[in-house]
Amino acid sequence: MRILGIDPGSHNTGYGVIDKEGNYLKQIIYGEIKPRKGVGLSGVLIEIYRRLAEVIEKEKPEAIALENIFYGKNVRSLIRQAQVRGVAIFSGADRNIPIFEYSPLEIKKAVVGYGRAEKRQVQAMVKAILKLPVLPPADAADALAVAICHANFFKGATM
Amino acid sequence: MRILGIDPGSHNTGYGVIDKEGNYLKQIIYGEIKPRKGVGLSGVLIEIYRRLAEVIEKEKPEAIALENIFYGKNVRSLIRQAQVRGVAIFSGADRNIPIFEYSPLEIKKAVVGYGRAEKRQVQAMVKAILKLPVLPPADAADALAVAICHANFFKGATM
Repeated sequence: MRILGIDPGSHNTGYGVIDKEGNYLKQIIYGEIKPRKGVGLSGVLIEIYRRLAEVIEKEKPEAIALENIFYGKNVRSLIRQAQVRGVAIFSGADRNIPIFEYSPLEIKKAVVGYGRAEKRQVQAMVKAILKLPVLPPADAADALAVAICHANFFKGATM
Repeated sequence: MRILGIDPGSHNTGYGVIDKEGNYLKQIIYGEIKPRKGVGLSGVLIEIYRRLAEVIEKEKPEAIALENIFYGKNVRSLIRQAQVRGVAIFSGADRNIPIFEYSPLEIKKAVVGYGRAEKRQVQAMVKAILKLPVLPPADAADALAVAICHANFFKGATM
């Protein structure tokens, strides 16, 4: 089972692909999409779509997992993030890949073991679980975390 | 100059294409995209994208105009609307069509003449300006209104 985790952000978007083979999780690829400054929302959405489409077509995930959108932030970045998220979901949905979403609590529980874990702990656990040689950057770690969550639970709300 | 106005909504998305020939505005096509119930967010985003892509490829607009996203509503429908809006913008941006946005105030001023106009007045003025035989449905009227606004002002913030 190959899973693509996506962490769409108002600035950077993280992604990570893992394989679940029995109880073993293996990292395939991860990265962050950081649109150049000054390209406008149009440019950002195009870059998000093209990079994710490239990952999807190359790595052929069978499921995509995302975190629920986070309500606590200011409305401007919430809207920006939601616009990016719409395009991220579309990039997979349009290729018939089922999309699942998980709450931050579910993700932290799946990765660290308890729901109040710090961002840094999530990064460290993602590194340990996937036996990565280095700590993945924060947004890529979040994307890998939601992919790990789906690998373990496999029952997020379909979108 | 051919303009596509889009009014992305958390439920229905309106669209309308007009031509500006000198000072004369002509309606080409308008409609509403009403995704079926139960298709999930994935299904909604696919339908929005495909319908808008169809309109864009058939009618070949040279500019796309949208209203600023409206902050006053509840966060759930704001997020849903923003996700739809991201895909709507992407459908044009990916085809190299410049995207412009206008505030509700600018749109009402352009169409009715003053910024506090009611929705019904906007519909009636859109009908009158474009010499439509019938009142267009509300979301299509909003889409036509932002297209009219762009035809008249032509200087919304590029996105």
